[in-house]
Amino acid sequence: MPSAYTHFKHVVFGRPLASERLEHERLNKKTALAVLSSDAISSVAYATDQILFVLGGAIGMTAVAYVLPISAVIVGLLVLVGLSYRQTIFAYPNGGGSYTVAKENLGDMPGLVAAAALLTDYILTVAVSISGGVAAITSAYPALVPHTVVICSLSIFLLATVNLRGVRESGAAFSLPTYAFIVMMLTLIGFGAFRYWTGHELAPLSGALKVDPVSAQSGGRFSPITGFALAYLLLRGFAEGCAAMTGTEAISNGVMAFKAPAQKNAAATLGWMVAILAAFFLGVSFLAHHYHVMPTTSETVLSILGHHIFGGGPLYYALQYTTFAVLVLAANTAFADFPRLAGILANDKYMPRQLAARGDRLAFSNGIIMLALVAWLLVWLFKGNTNALVPLYAIGVFVCFTLSQAGMVVHWRNTREPGWIWKAWLNGIGAVATALVSLIQIVTKFTSGGWIIALIIPAIIFLLRAIHKHYVEFAEDTRFLGQSPINPLHHTVIVPVNGISKATSGALVYATTISDEVVAVYIEVDKRDTLRIEQEWEAWDIGVPLVVVPSPYRSILKPLVEYVENLRMVTPGELVTIVVPEIVPKRWWEHLLHNKTALYIRTAFLFKPNVVVTAIPYLVGHAYRIRDWMDHDEDLDEGPDEENSVASESATAA
Amino acid sequence: MPSAYTHFKHVVFGRPLASERLEHERLNKKTALAVLSSDAISSVAYATDQILFVLGGAIGMTAVAYVLPISAVIVGLLVLVGLSYRQTIFAYPNGGGSYTVAKENLGDMPGLVAAAALLTDYILTVAVSISGGVAAITSAYPALVPHTVVICSLSIFLLATVNLRGVRESGAAFSLPTYAFIVMMLTLIGFGAFRYWTGHELAPLSGALKVDPVSAQSGGRFSPITGFALAYLLLRGFAEGCAAMTGTEAISNGVMAFKAPAQKNAAATLGWMVAILAAFFLGVSFLAHHYHVMPTTSETVLSILGHHIFGGGPLYYALQYTTFAVLVLAANTAFADFPRLAGILANDKYMPRQLAARGDRLAFSNGIIMLALVAWLLVWLFKGNTNALVPLYAIGVFVCFTLSQAGMVVHWRNTREPGWIWKAWLNGIGAVATALVSLIQIVTKFTSGGWIIALIIPAIIFLLRAIHKHYVEFAEDTRFLGQSPINPLHHTVIVPVNGISKATSGALVYATTISDEVVAVYIEVDKRDTLRIEQEWEAWDIGVPLVVVPSPYRSILKPLVEYVENLRMVTPGELVTIVVPEIVPKRWWEHLLHNKTALYIRTAFLFKPNVVVTAIPYLVGHAYRIRDWMDHDEDLDEGPDEENSVASESATAA
Repeated sequence: MPSAYTHFKHVVFGRPLASERLEHERLNKKTALAVLSSDAISSVAYATDQILFVLGGAIGMTAVAYVLPISAVIVGLLVLVGLSYRQTIFAYPNGGGSYTVAKENLGDMPGLVAAAALLTDYILTVAVSISGGVAAITSAYPALVPHTVVICSLSIFLLATVNLRGVRESGAAFSLPTYAFIVMMLTLIGFGAFRYWTGHELAPLSGALKVDPVSAQSGGRFSPITGFALAYLLLRGFAEGCAAMTGTEAISNGVMAFKAPAQKNAAATLGWMVAILAAFFLGVSFLAHHYHVMPTTSETVLSILGHHIFGGGPLYYALQYTTFAVLVLAANTAFADFPRLAGILANDKYMPRQLAARGDRLAFSNGIIMLALVAWLLVWLFKGNTNALVPLYAIGVFVCFTLSQAGMVVHWRNTREPGWIWKAWLNGIGAVATALVSLIQIVTKFTSGGWIIALIIPAIIFLLRAIHKHYVEFAEDTRFLGQSPINPLHHTVIVPVNGISKATSGALVYATTISDEVVAVYIEVDKRDTLRIEQEWEAWDIGVPLVVVPSPYRSILKPLVEYVENLRMVTPGELVTIVVPEIVPKRWWEHLLHNKTALYIRTAFLFKPNVVVTAIPYLVGHAYRIRDWMDHDEDLDEGPDEENSVASESATAA
Repeated sequence: MPSAYTHFKHVVFGRPLASERLEHERLNKKTALAVLSSDAISSVAYATDQILFVLGGAIGMTAVAYVLPISAVIVGLLVLVGLSYRQTIFAYPNGGGSYTVAKENLGDMPGLVAAAALLTDYILTVAVSISGGVAAITSAYPALVPHTVVICSLSIFLLATVNLRGVRESGAAFSLPTYAFIVMMLTLIGFGAFRYWTGHELAPLSGALKVDPVSAQSGGRFSPITGFALAYLLLRGFAEGCAAMTGTEAISNGVMAFKAPAQKNAAATLGWMVAILAAFFLGVSFLAHHYHVMPTTSETVLSILGHHIFGGGPLYYALQYTTFAVLVLAANTAFADFPRLAGILANDKYMPRQLAARGDRLAFSNGIIMLALVAWLLVWLFKGNTNALVPLYAIGVFVCFTLSQAGMVVHWRNTREPGWIWKAWLNGIGAVATALVSLIQIVTKFTSGGWIIALIIPAIIFLLRAIHKHYVEFAEDTRFLGQSPINPLHHTVIVPVNGISKATSGALVYATTISDEVVAVYIEVDKRDTLRIEQEWEAWDIGVPLVVVPSPYRSILKPLVEYVENLRMVTPGELVTIVVPEIVPKRWWEHLLHNKTALYIRTAFLFKPNVVVTAIPYLVGHAYRIRDWMDHDEDLDEGPDEENSVASESATAA
């Protein structure tokens, strides 16, 4: 059984990797662009949709007139934030995540705000990207719409599995689809633009052809909106469109995952990412504007454009598949970042220490599993509906942008390195701009889901602080100050017995090994048995006295606890060990046939100082054999296999 | 917290009773009739219904012509079985249950068949009686029909609670309603019969007025049935009507629950029970015949008769309420008998030994809880439908009757006491008659649920034998033959450490107390920490060597297991104790913040011989205080209260 489990684990997650190999698990630029930028680049699959949804719901097809200017403003903001993060890359070579930057420069509390916002956003990255990716598939195959949640769930657990195998393998596996998406987007935008410029135009889609359900409900007629109402509506559209900017921080968080020279490579990759994202986002918005596209609840903007420009042939399907693929990879970004952040927080005593441990494959296994479960829960709760999930998104991202860049301003003021004033100004402008956008996000999205984030972020902060408080108190509590909590003057060993058996004799032999002062205690429930036991004991004659303790209420525990307490009251400083034979049957159901006396005794004495309970396992029906749970020999035997896999991995990564 | 739990337990279930009081928890005749006969007497609430249901479904209102002769045959059988059991009472003063009698005289296997049949029937007694009782209530208040399962469930758990308080209190609480039912039945039959004899007759109910759903379905027209088909139909009706005889064995099983002279009292009570049951069953069948009553799925025969004879006034409601009450008490019979039988089986190693232990209140708590759960499951599965449950019933009862009386024949032949030949003949005739009825039961009911019983009884026998086999093997396996399973030549204690803390120091002090050979082992996951630990250790200087074991794959367990195995390979006969500090946080969620290293180490070494794992609990955030789980002091302090309650109970029982 354990061997079969180990075999399964090795096949699915790969063989264990030694700690020494950590250094080698690094990404080159090409792979890093695929792994770390897919979140940002893939946003084009849903960002334009969100703008059109919000505006279309209020003003119908008139919305397409505003999509291009809004997109242009967002791209401006993107370039500003990109330049800011470029500075962070060079300032924090070990990964300048918002948490690190905010904590170091602004203090613990801003750091925790950033951490809570980031954790939330990584979870939402998985939920939004997976549901967006599945929307690309269901746009192409409407028959699959009822299975949305199942497809989403499978995708999440596939991703988790790949990530449990370790970081570079996932990079290698994921390079191809990202580039395929880039090619398909270039083809779509190029083809659409070419027709526009050469005059070989396709007819704009009529408003009636693609009516979104909201405008259908109101009969397609909208009262004209002007003045403040229009401004507010455009702000909402802007806030939703900012979903395009999520993921911009991924590269500066992951500098240490790059091959040397890490900072230079990271900066170059960041530049490429911003350029590609800006081009695609503007391109899609331009085409949406030009062809009067309005997304529906069952078809995305990209799908409508693909149908229209490619005419529904193989190119259309290629677009949808690559969109799905790149969004799955976007979710993968979070699978790299969430566990890493959780590990940093765990080292800072803000999260359970189990999250700081690297698993067999050098990935932070616990963090990956945690992220997969929470994201899956979200997808399940929201039925895999991207449009319901996106409003939760971006709020936290902009909070992080703000804190990170405000932190950078303080950083430059502290270091005062050459040119620090200009750098501080750039980050300062970024901080003000993103702070303003954060405010817009919270205000305009509050009723459409933003309130959830406004509740969850403080809740996470509360939790992180509670965990921190525990670890600090724990460290304080267990600090060794020269005096041991156990300080025995004398050691008595008590063996509860209910007759003479191999199990009892094992416990008695163990007891006499660890102390010269051993007492066997018999709890008398039925007086008729006592004489027989006493006679048998005398005949056995092993030099251990038998004490009979009456139990008028038939309890085994109460008289034993009383006996031990009396003993300790008579001789203060007494250390008592209770040695109990513990029956370990072979088959699971046989456990039901034995009183769990050892367990009950342990529980009864758990909170009593200077009493130790030792269970001596007695295996019933097992041949005494060494059952090696961990199959360590097997791992060692197959060392050569691992060498091979290193070689093949290096080849892939080259 | 534990104190609040104890307080709740005392209020609901009563204070613990000392074993010495077992002798006093006995029943007088009046109470015994209520407790032990309610099962049998209450059968009149559903037995006539079952005959009419089966016959009415095939031949419509013509069925009422056959109900009286069938009932008369059953009453004849009842008297025969009653006389047989009277003999058992005198032969088995300690309770002559079918299991005991069959096992002693016929052998283990017939004993197990009887045991399995009895266990099944006790469970069905609860399920049938409770659902029958609730049917009495829903007959009076049809609006409650949709809540049948809820009312049944509440009744079962109320009964279980009362029984967990102990046997005599339940007897005292239950005497009144049984006698009230007897009074109401006498009134009903007397009133109905008086009108018949004096000529002040009520009009017979027309067939059209009370049509059962089966005849309604076939339009009320039935093809005439004759010859073999009619005979078979009447046999089926007879088999169903035999449900009236369930519970007849209760008194002879419970002889030892009677006050002295137990056998004389039990025999007298048995006589009364048979007389009352026979009178009521014949009375109800006579009235059903006379007034042409046909039960429906929503109204019972007793309810229809009550409506008709009492006219729906207070007398009618009194009848329904007392019917409900007596059926609840019938279920109570099983709550007395099932746990007692389970206890006997447990002492014979056929059931888990936990079922042999009396609880705080001298009742067999585990058996009561088990019965309540299984019966509740049945009621829930069958939606509280009496008519679906009754066909399962009676089959097992007659199997027990047969085995018990066959056993008695052998018993008389062995004892050869004065008059044994006549006694053997009486039991022999009883055995043959009930064997015949058993056969009729199985054949005629097979398709209407009997097959379930035909599967379950062998399954229970299989289970009982598997349990027996385990206990026998266990006794064999653990029998002490002069050699202990642990036989150490040398004892090494290993303390896994990850730094110097109070918890570590406690474990080390304990380790040095139990052996002179102590080694601290540090599992090196990260080389950077090792030097610091080694330096601290040297500075500490407590005379225990520190061994650093590298763990290239970051596992804590594997290197530790390997280290211990190497140690034991080098020196055979080595006993190894691993002393692990175990962190016990104060709040439950804090457990999630600590690696369960102690637990994992225990599991890893559970199957390794001559390795003992001892956890030294280190309480974090608890003031070191003695948390008395069992509040024993409280119980002792309030001794006088118990004396008072004994006095008041004696007064009630007098």
